[in-house]
Amino acid sequence: MRSDRLEETLLPKRVALPVFASDALSSVAYAPDEIFLTLGTAGLAAYTYSWRVGIAVGLVMLVVVASYRQNVHAYPSGGGDYEVATVNLGRTPGLTVASALLVDYVLTVAVSISSAAQYAASTVHQLRGHEAQIAIAAVIILMSLNLRGVRESGTFFAIPTYAFMVAVLGMALWGFSRLAFGHLPDAASAPFELDPESHYVNGVTGLAGGFLILRAFSSGCAALTGVEAISNGVPAFKKPKSKNAATTLLLLGTISVTMLLSIITLGKVTNIHFAENVAQQLRWHGQQGRALDPSTVRFPDGRTFTQDPVIGQLAKAIFSNLPLLATVVTTVTGLILVLAANTAFNGFPVLGSILAQDRYLPRQLHTRGDRLAYSNGIIILASFAIVLIFAFDAQVTRLIQLYIVGVFVSFTTSQTGMVRHWTRLLRTETDPAVRRRMQRSRIINAVGLSVTGLVLVVVLITKFLLGAWIAIAAMVVLFFLMKGIRRHYEGVSEELVVDDDEDTTLPSRTHAIVLVSKIHKPTMRAVNYARAMRPTTLEAVTVNVDTKETQALQAEWDRRGIPVPLKVLDSPFREVTDPVIEYVRSLRRGSPRDLVTVLIPEYVVGHWWEHLLHNQSALRLKGRLLFTPGVMVTSVPWQLKSSVGIEDRREAEVPSAIRRGPGKP
Amino acid sequence: MRSDRLEETLLPKRVALPVFASDALSSVAYAPDEIFLTLGTAGLAAYTYSWRVGIAVGLVMLVVVASYRQNVHAYPSGGGDYEVATVNLGRTPGLTVASALLVDYVLTVAVSISSAAQYAASTVHQLRGHEAQIAIAAVIILMSLNLRGVRESGTFFAIPTYAFMVAVLGMALWGFSRLAFGHLPDAASAPFELDPESHYVNGVTGLAGGFLILRAFSSGCAALTGVEAISNGVPAFKKPKSKNAATTLLLLGTISVTMLLSIITLGKVTNIHFAENVAQQLRWHGQQGRALDPSTVRFPDGRTFTQDPVIGQLAKAIFSNLPLLATVVTTVTGLILVLAANTAFNGFPVLGSILAQDRYLPRQLHTRGDRLAYSNGIIILASFAIVLIFAFDAQVTRLIQLYIVGVFVSFTTSQTGMVRHWTRLLRTETDPAVRRRMQRSRIINAVGLSVTGLVLVVVLITKFLLGAWIAIAAMVVLFFLMKGIRRHYEGVSEELVVDDDEDTTLPSRTHAIVLVSKIHKPTMRAVNYARAMRPTTLEAVTVNVDTKETQALQAEWDRRGIPVPLKVLDSPFREVTDPVIEYVRSLRRGSPRDLVTVLIPEYVVGHWWEHLLHNQSALRLKGRLLFTPGVMVTSVPWQLKSSVGIEDRREAEVPSAIRRGPGKP
Repeated sequence: MRSDRLEETLLPKRVALPVFASDALSSVAYAPDEIFLTLGTAGLAAYTYSWRVGIAVGLVMLVVVASYRQNVHAYPSGGGDYEVATVNLGRTPGLTVASALLVDYVLTVAVSISSAAQYAASTVHQLRGHEAQIAIAAVIILMSLNLRGVRESGTFFAIPTYAFMVAVLGMALWGFSRLAFGHLPDAASAPFELDPESHYVNGVTGLAGGFLILRAFSSGCAALTGVEAISNGVPAFKKPKSKNAATTLLLLGTISVTMLLSIITLGKVTNIHFAENVAQQLRWHGQQGRALDPSTVRFPDGRTFTQDPVIGQLAKAIFSNLPLLATVVTTVTGLILVLAANTAFNGFPVLGSILAQDRYLPRQLHTRGDRLAYSNGIIILASFAIVLIFAFDAQVTRLIQLYIVGVFVSFTTSQTGMVRHWTRLLRTETDPAVRRRMQRSRIINAVGLSVTGLVLVVVLITKFLLGAWIAIAAMVVLFFLMKGIRRHYEGVSEELVVDDDEDTTLPSRTHAIVLVSKIHKPTMRAVNYARAMRPTTLEAVTVNVDTKETQALQAEWDRRGIPVPLKVLDSPFREVTDPVIEYVRSLRRGSPRDLVTVLIPEYVVGHWWEHLLHNQSALRLKGRLLFTPGVMVTSVPWQLKSSVGIEDRREAEVPSAIRRGPGKP
Repeated sequence: MRSDRLEETLLPKRVALPVFASDALSSVAYAPDEIFLTLGTAGLAAYTYSWRVGIAVGLVMLVVVASYRQNVHAYPSGGGDYEVATVNLGRTPGLTVASALLVDYVLTVAVSISSAAQYAASTVHQLRGHEAQIAIAAVIILMSLNLRGVRESGTFFAIPTYAFMVAVLGMALWGFSRLAFGHLPDAASAPFELDPESHYVNGVTGLAGGFLILRAFSSGCAALTGVEAISNGVPAFKKPKSKNAATTLLLLGTISVTMLLSIITLGKVTNIHFAENVAQQLRWHGQQGRALDPSTVRFPDGRTFTQDPVIGQLAKAIFSNLPLLATVVTTVTGLILVLAANTAFNGFPVLGSILAQDRYLPRQLHTRGDRLAYSNGIIILASFAIVLIFAFDAQVTRLIQLYIVGVFVSFTTSQTGMVRHWTRLLRTETDPAVRRRMQRSRIINAVGLSVTGLVLVVVLITKFLLGAWIAIAAMVVLFFLMKGIRRHYEGVSEELVVDDDEDTTLPSRTHAIVLVSKIHKPTMRAVNYARAMRPTTLEAVTVNVDTKETQALQAEWDRRGIPVPLKVLDSPFREVTDPVIEYVRSLRRGSPRDLVTVLIPEYVVGHWWEHLLHNQSALRLKGRLLFTPGVMVTSVPWQLKSSVGIEDRREAEVPSAIRRGPGKP
């Protein structure tokens, strides 16, 4: 997109909501499952806590939304968590947030796509047992689409997101009305007994019970991921940007909490029994079954049961007389999960670019609008997500243990930054009305800080050993890697500062050397170009590897009357590079204030494999010459026929490929 | 080795023999095994043919030796089979030989090292069952030694080769004298019954029987591999080169045949029973056993038998009262097999270099004496050998089915070439004495041609389906690959021929452009160098990606009073490469007869990972600029501190590393 056309693409609220909401809303597809499943390890009795856990998650969600509304007002330019933390707290907290966000983008892809694969398998039964392969294939497809630079329009997001909202809220409404009329059937899993796992045979009691409830709450907090997306995207809103963004955020929070609580309540009233280990926990008439795959169990009497995700089970129960609608619900849910993963493909390279600009990542990730810069980020993201999916066999429950830590590290740090932000402004602000508003904001952010901080502690305690340590280890590694990169760049920068009293005397003379191996067009062009440069001295240089060939070359050189002397370097080891380097060094030793230019004729080829056949010794020589001070290395290209047109084709490709993600973190 | 010191290293016969003999002699370690094993598939009765097969192989060996003595006289400069075929028969036969030889080098390594691993396992029992791992490790060690450029002196070859000759011939002598005195014990495998395999329950009868004998003969012909090495190495001999080489060749043939026949005879008299499938074919008191590993079988009564290679069984029987000597024999045999593999590590890169010189392989394999050129060859050879060892689980019997085809393709073609050679010479030769000698040589080569051609047909018929087709397919692929490479080089050559009426008018003006991203030492150096070149016009160019940064740059540029105008290019897509390319093109369009030089400041770094952090956009820009006609791209290097010393260190490494193999094929 051209910079001067960015203005035209600002989003009204009705489009902004779906663009930024898919990540946050999609977590409804797995968060209730995790709450039921975690509580279920203590047996059915623990389900009495499910709606309390749901309400707790909902409350946290509302606090977070209220807090981020303050961010949106304070940073209308789109202060992502990284920026808020860096500006208000300094580089180390900023880098901490950045590490957490990078890890979380990878987990967003892994979790969303794994969950989508589950929905796919629950819709098309033939896919069952192949979830990991499906998920990996999906990541590769997403990566390819993003590499090709498919531009998502607002509509592209709007249709499936609104479809998802309509589907889930419609289903809830239908379910509640059937409940009111007493016609709501039980879920498919209701008739099965749910055994507690061995640690929890006594149900939810004592310290272990409390710990379990906290763990269910932590998993439920997965519903909060993606809420921060809007605060990154304020500049993409129509004016008044901040107000519109804040309204959208509130809307998003409300919809999200409504969905979450509806699903939990409906799950409770349809008697869903949701097991972590299907084969061990579920019984049928007192009998245990045998696992056919992780979610399917066959009982001794031949009955087979497949545990669908909660939304899937609800849809089948609620639309028991409209099976097509049930399929629509699961399909749309799968779709929004893919869309959620796709937002990470937009966010990750943008964050990478910002970090590169701050010199925490290699500079080539920065160049904005450059397709290649984004490509690297897209490939890195996809690769790590695939590794995770493969390592955890696309099991959402196991992946989710790694998730959330990062989000809450980022929430907490960002809220700390906001509190500091208001305190700083209050120090100078005198207008009492403004001061009141700021104090109110500070209180909201302080509450946000306390709540998210508390949740972070809970998440750390309940999830660390279950997998959060992996995410934390990854963050620590990233943190030090990025710090190291910045230190390196700073060191180089210092090394390169130009002193004001820098010696600016020019080299007194220039010596040009044309490297010659045989007489052909590239050589002649190099000689002509070198002559056109009018250096103080000019000579052609060849290395004598084969005496006969060298004599022939010398003879042809003379015959053609090329007006440049040809110098022959001896090569005792029949090697090309060393004699040239040695000769150039000897020139430099003779007159260290002079400048030596080495001209190397080079073939330009059109196919990658042609590189294997050409220029290899030129490349090596060039690499070595660069280490020699006071030497310039000039490539004189000769375009082989196979290369013609390549540049034009490339040029035609570029503009369409340049695009920008919807938000910047 | 310096070219001018090659003279000092010429070899006397007593050193030349071991240098060139290891490959040919080492095949005695597996050829007899293959004869016994192949015949054994038809049961014990077939062993009556073993010495006849041995004699047939011996006769072929003598014919081949006699033929190659003619090659040695005709090509004192060391005409390898490739050269003989190319000179006398043309390019296609030459390339056929080359493909065959390349494939055979790989097989030499795979077969020799796999056999060595068998000997190692028969000496150190703990290694049993891990032959493939041992073999792969050995190839990697050999590769590393060769990459480091360990120079084998004559002595390095002489000691183990002479030790092997002494060991095997001594063992034979001792065995025959014990036989004469009636004290020779049976081999360890003698008491077992040897069942024929199901196809051969009737023994060696009819067509199938004849086929089996031919197959045993084909496998036995493995003894001939490596005989041609001397003909490649004539220039390495002391004067009179040809005569000394011919004598050494005769000596080698005699020793080889003696060893082969001795071992077969001793195997027969010690009643060796050698099975292809130990567990299926061997019986103990009529009972079949169970395989513990491919060469070990346990019988129902608890007796365990491990089938050692023939030389190993003979050594144990003959030195039944001197077990230490038996161990010496197997150890020395293992050693010479490794040495044989090592000759391929010398021969393969040399042949690669010759083929590269003839433009059948990428040019960078050519540069003689250059360590890197050889390194590529060494790595390619080792990789393919490892793939083969892995694929065939280091089983010599399976690998040997791929071997030999290549050798006999090369023998046959080369002998055809020699017949043609003498016929051509006879056309002009008038001296009757010389003519007689030539006619005699022609007859010998014609006999060689007939015999090796016949053997080739036998080998093809008996081995094609057993694995030779793999070797042949590889040769065909190599053949067309090399032909394609040559065609490519020829096309390029033609494209680059300088016409005599070539336009040699120089570019009328030179424009220099210095690319600037910020003001630091590399930029200032590039500006100073550009000024020193005194181009017609000189300007600094920067791309406006971030307006604020660009303004700051412009301000500092003015403040410092840099005497070069700074041009700012707009970048609608915030991208760096395209605007520069477009600007350069516009300059060229404005005055197509002028020359444009683009100077790019570049960091020179010392660590590989620093490349990831620097120069990436410079590299990309350079790559793109080369496609633009009429442009020279100049790198102005700035050596970062981390790079200092790298070049000196590299220089110190090089000379010691340069070495040359003993022969050229």
